[in-house]
Amino acid sequence: MTNIGIGILGGGYMGKAHAVAMSSVGAIFNTGLRPTLEMVCASSAQSAEGYRRAYGFQRATDNWRELVNDPKIQAVIIATPQQTHRDIALAAFALGKPVFCEKPLGANMDDSLVMTTAAEASGIVNMVGFNYIRTPASQYARQLIASGEIGDITWFRGEHTEDFYADPEAPASWRTSGASNGTMGDLAPHMINAALALIGPVARVMAEIETVHHERPGGSVTNDDHAQMMCRFENGTMGQFYFSRIATGRKMGYAYEITGTKGAIRFDQEDQNALWLYRMDGPEAKRGFTKILTGPAHPDYEPFCQGPGHGTGYQDQIIIEARDFLKAIETGQSIWPTFRDGHEVNCVVDAAMASAQSGAWQDISKLQAQESIK
Amino acid sequence: MTNIGIGILGGGYMGKAHAVAMSSVGAIFNTGLRPTLEMVCASSAQSAEGYRRAYGFQRATDNWRELVNDPKIQAVIIATPQQTHRDIALAAFALGKPVFCEKPLGANMDDSLVMTTAAEASGIVNMVGFNYIRTPASQYARQLIASGEIGDITWFRGEHTEDFYADPEAPASWRTSGASNGTMGDLAPHMINAALALIGPVARVMAEIETVHHERPGGSVTNDDHAQMMCRFENGTMGQFYFSRIATGRKMGYAYEITGTKGAIRFDQEDQNALWLYRMDGPEAKRGFTKILTGPAHPDYEPFCQGPGHGTGYQDQIIIEARDFLKAIETGQSIWPTFRDGHEVNCVVDAAMASAQSGAWQDISKLQAQESIK
Amino acid sequence: MTNIGIGILGGGYMGKAHAVAMSSVGAIFNTGLRPTLEMVCASSAQSAEGYRRAYGFQRATDNWRELVNDPKIQAVIIATPQQTHRDIALAAFALGKPVFCEKPLGANMDDSLVMTTAAEASGIVNMVGFNYIRTPASQYARQLIASGEIGDITWFRGEHTEDFYADPEAPASWRTSGASNGTMGDLAPHMINAALALIGPVARVMAEIETVHHERPGGSVTNDDHAQMMCRFENGTMGQFYFSRIATGRKMGYAYEITGTKGAIRFDQEDQNALWLYRMDGPEAKRGFTKILTGPAHPDYEPFCQGPGHGTGYQDQIIIEARDFLKAIETGQSIWPTFRDGHEVNCVVDAAMASAQSGAWQDISKLQAQESIK
Amino acid sequence: MTNIGIGILGGGYMGKAHAVAMSSVGAIFNTGLRPTLEMVCASSAQSAEGYRRAYGFQRATDNWRELVNDPKIQAVIIATPQQTHRDIALAAFALGKPVFCEKPLGANMDDSLVMTTAAEASGIVNMVGFNYIRTPASQYARQLIASGEIGDITWFRGEHTEDFYADPEAPASWRTSGASNGTMGDLAPHMINAALALIGPVARVMAEIETVHHERPGGSVTNDDHAQMMCRFENGTMGQFYFSRIATGRKMGYAYEITGTKGAIRFDQEDQNALWLYRMDGPEAKRGFTKILTGPAHPDYEPFCQGPGHGTGYQDQIIIEARDFLKAIETGQSIWPTFRDGHEVNCVVDAAMASAQSGAWQDISKLQAQESIK
Repeated sequence: MTNIGIGILGGGYMGKAHAVAMSSVGAIFNTGLRPTLEMVCASSAQSAEGYRRAYGFQRATDNWRELVNDPKIQAVIIATPQQTHRDIALAAFALGKPVFCEKPLGANMDDSLVMTTAAEASGIVNMVGFNYIRTPASQYARQLIASGEIGDITWFRGEHTEDFYADPEAPASWRTSGASNGTMGDLAPHMINAALALIGPVARVMAEIETVHHERPGGSVTNDDHAQMMCRFENGTMGQFYFSRIATGRKMGYAYEITGTKGAIRFDQEDQNALWLYRMDGPEAKRGFTKILTGPAHPDYEPFCQGPGHGTGYQDQIIIEARDFLKAIETGQSIWPTFRDGHEVNCVVDAAMASAQSGAWQDISKLQAQESIK
Repeated sequence: MTNIGIGILGGGYMGKAHAVAMSSVGAIFNTGLRPTLEMVCASSAQSAEGYRRAYGFQRATDNWRELVNDPKIQAVIIATPQQTHRDIALAAFALGKPVFCEKPLGANMDDSLVMTTAAEASGIVNMVGFNYIRTPASQYARQLIASGEIGDITWFRGEHTEDFYADPEAPASWRTSGASNGTMGDLAPHMINAALALIGPVARVMAEIETVHHERPGGSVTNDDHAQMMCRFENGTMGQFYFSRIATGRKMGYAYEITGTKGAIRFDQEDQNALWLYRMDGPEAKRGFTKILTGPAHPDYEPFCQGPGHGTGYQDQIIIEARDFLKAIETGQSIWPTFRDGHEVNCVVDAAMASAQSGAWQDISKLQAQESIK
Repeated sequence: MTNIGIGILGGGYMGKAHAVAMSSVGAIFNTGLRPTLEMVCASSAQSAEGYRRAYGFQRATDNWRELVNDPKIQAVIIATPQQTHRDIALAAFALGKPVFCEKPLGANMDDSLVMTTAAEASGIVNMVGFNYIRTPASQYARQLIASGEIGDITWFRGEHTEDFYADPEAPASWRTSGASNGTMGDLAPHMINAALALIGPVARVMAEIETVHHERPGGSVTNDDHAQMMCRFENGTMGQFYFSRIATGRKMGYAYEITGTKGAIRFDQEDQNALWLYRMDGPEAKRGFTKILTGPAHPDYEPFCQGPGHGTGYQDQIIIEARDFLKAIETGQSIWPTFRDGHEVNCVVDAAMASAQSGAWQDISKLQAQESIK
Repeated sequence: MTNIGIGILGGGYMGKAHAVAMSSVGAIFNTGLRPTLEMVCASSAQSAEGYRRAYGFQRATDNWRELVNDPKIQAVIIATPQQTHRDIALAAFALGKPVFCEKPLGANMDDSLVMTTAAEASGIVNMVGFNYIRTPASQYARQLIASGEIGDITWFRGEHTEDFYADPEAPASWRTSGASNGTMGDLAPHMINAALALIGPVARVMAEIETVHHERPGGSVTNDDHAQMMCRFENGTMGQFYFSRIATGRKMGYAYEITGTKGAIRFDQEDQNALWLYRMDGPEAKRGFTKILTGPAHPDYEPFCQGPGHGTGYQDQIIIEARDFLKAIETGQSIWPTFRDGHEVNCVVDAAMASAQSGAWQDISKLQAQESIK
């Protein structure tokens, strides 16, 4: 086992989650590399020091370059606002330091293209933080589909719905301006990533993106409250999406339904330890959706608990990410999802925005994007 | 109490359901008019006689005009294939006889327009058979929305999904040809009717309609397996639909989710005795979707059973329709849903088909249709 | 097809249900015997006449002997209070008329023994009204267990819980006095019947029976609010029961869980169209409880609807009873559950009451009862 | 913040869970005391060294006395087999070192009495490991009941059911001998602890304890497979329990249903992030069980995630225990559940075993036990 110095940029919601993950991932997965919490960076020296003490870092700074440049920092985790992702990542790659970047990869598709180009040109390990697809249930769903368990896929429906802005009287905040903070920029990427992972690349989309509550106490709202999308996957599958931050009653509505010619899968993150599987075999009288509780028989469950049905939670998803990031660094081989995967999500988001403006179907510009990378 | 002679055209699936409903509706609802099963019509004399004996009709015929013209027939129920609806209904209205017509109202929008025009010109009682909206749960959902219980509606998602053609090896049949027998023609009307009833008129739609399995044992498939649709309601609400006969695992997937600014409603016909209601009030810690079991406190439940949670079923929906049809005849006032309502559903279906062909948004042609009626 | 004159005693809750059932059973099941609603009996001439008009009977009476003796009455349905069951049934048997008697069979075990003795001595068709076991789901559960699908049974848990007296301020009524109107006398028989049908005879019980709210507006309560019971079945299986009319939130909590060495079954009447089946086979990763929606593949479903998942309800259970009663009359062979089965349920109830008094295990006195019959 | 040296005895299932918890608890809860993993003890030097490397301890030993006596060990966590608990705990208390002991507190009631006496006599911080009651949902259930939200409690039903020995062909192991490894000794304590926490002390019990599969591949089974119990709480509430390791299909069936005069609560650990609450207020039509998803509004949730419905898991329960243990050490005040609470659970287990032997009701001997302590 070897120690590795970790630097985390951002100490809020996701910064804390990564700090905790790095503290426990070694014991849970018996990793080859063992993280040391070297330095945390925040927007002020005071808050950085607060995070340092709370999470157990050695040092704190309010200067991201200091963190990236520090010789004891051997890997960088970016958990700062989207518009900062690009510069930090480029600086880290320039120094040959592996980068884990929270989603969305950058503030827009231009950012993510540059970041992906830099990552691939440098050959340095890179990863993007789509945590929800990391549950044992969703990992197992991917396996089931890949193995043909439900036959040829004929339909995909996905949503990412929450209700933190369902109340029209909830005040304006940093969340209510900036496209990358709206529903399409901030929530949609998770479910688009899931769709790409479960079904494959998207060929074209037709979207509607809408701000329902234009005024809130404290100011105007300049980004979107909810959005819907129809899509066609490259393999011909028809798909449908809904994204919302005003979905009253929905707390973590990361949910999908997948239909195949031999079966079907249903999942809802609000009951993240269950996967529903229907198989078109055996006598009709015994058919139905089976509620599978995740357990040691499913991917990445056993290191958390030997008992099936005992359940993993949100934080455990981040720990699984940490395990993969450390393993990628150890082997020098990036592990899915890479910056490239994050960029492909952004391409779909970008196409949806274009479609919503034109009112017409929009092809995904990914292929062009790949051209311009070369 | 007065007797009323009933004639039913068609003795299969729906014909039987209506015969049973007319046998029991009087005792259940203590109706003013009491039905007598006068005559049943089927495609052959032999099958008609079989239906007569099985369901307890006085007489049988294989000639629909004989039934409609018979002086003892005081009301007509049409449960024959869609392409026959038009001529039968027009003949009945010409004789001043009330008509209950199964959905879809006719084989296409032209039919339903003519039928609606004839119904309204005649002033005779008319009704169309959307049974699923008749459950106590869905009736209550309508009341909740109308009373503002969940605030202003911001989102509607509806589906009608079944899997009777999910198996690619299921053989071709009468169901696999003719637009009115496809998913958009046959299944979609139920959920479109629900959307109109719950939210209000639809302004425009954007649809994809697809045949997934073009060849089946026994022949080619010439109508659609599944379809998706985005819509905008006239009140501004965004909506999303999915219709499928290949939705593996789904048996009676008539389901909707409705979001408002003060609450939300979820319903799935596969558990038709439960309605899920979320209300954005009280302490956050106690909020959640409430699973309301239907009972005497909900519309049209008590006549079936005094005990809550004891449950109503499919046949009971048809009995509720029968109650309304008899009451309409008794009072001379048509009761929702009338032919007009059936026609409005067909207008949405028609617009969806046009949109799927053009690949563009399609306004609903209903207003024009109304013009041409006048 | 032959007509058969039906007389129903009692026109309230269950009397209505049977009148409706007799009106529609012929059309639904294409029965050989076709019921005619000849006469209804109620406690006053006025209420009897009201029932006659509402349900469509030919005649009405307030004298049960008049009904039983009437030559046009060819079969008798008893839906009057428990203490009246005995005399009516004995009179009917004396005249050679088949009897359907609502549960519980009589006011106590003495009654039910006499009634069972009379039924068996007469050789006349007899049946007792346990309707909940008639759902397609519970019938299928019986088949699954009988066929060994879940292996040797190791555990049974059953409950019948409702909340109509959960509110301590709900006023006293006829329901709050008389052992046969308490929870043990009125609700428990349904689930005890289910246990006997699903697992087999009970050997001994250990029970607690309790009145929680001794005083209610309008008077004292002299029967039980809830009861619990441990049991040992004759086949060695351990079992557990709970019965309650004060189970706040429970509307129709007729629910059971059955564990076997190869699988398990779960059922809850509040979602009566679903049966949950777990089978200990196939890969561990795919195991889980399968939610089976009832459909044409399950017992007695298809006559109500050809579509799976479309659902049956409370009234349909009574119609299934009617079908069996008519068939028994037609063939001269009683069909489960007979008076004997109703008596066996009463034996368990009686033993539970004895156990609750003594605080000790109580053997079921059924064997002795059978002796005294002979 | 101050560091505290932690020693853990046992490196298996629970030992790992506690090591992980001590690694991350500081960052999650910003604790005053920050744990250092000083030493781990296992049954062999080799396995101890393996645990040391895997979990990141400084040192390893196969001699529990060495660990307890080590001056850098400032607190001891006991996660070894039940029969070893007593000696270790007594040694630690003698040295004035706080002890966290896994459940059950000792191998039997004698052990737990001695351990409790020693803990209380020493005045040293002590805690017992009932982790399942630590979920935000179950903590909230306790609050709801304590605040009178569901009125006076009239009924409690609890189970702890798993199926790891449901297969009769599963081989014998250390789990199949020794009363403390049987279902009553090993699984029942969790749910008994829940009952005591939710409802209050138990006055008397009536139990059946059974070995269903006496022979397994590899040897005879000498402890119990499942057990049921009726109880009376001291506050008069009636209760019912079931415990099983052969509950086919049940993975983590720690479940309870609690009825009160104003509401009801239902919980099932297999969906540990949901609590179901029924309240008898408002219009009947809107009543039903509300599925509350845990979130920041519930106890101990927010430090794991700011988003409601995002979910906590098994490991998080252990982290909450760690937080309380550290806080107790910091303040010198033991926090619930203490050894006393663990002992009270054992008293119920012991009474159940006595009842199962005698076939009669058994009073809880706790009061006597308290006498003998004094």
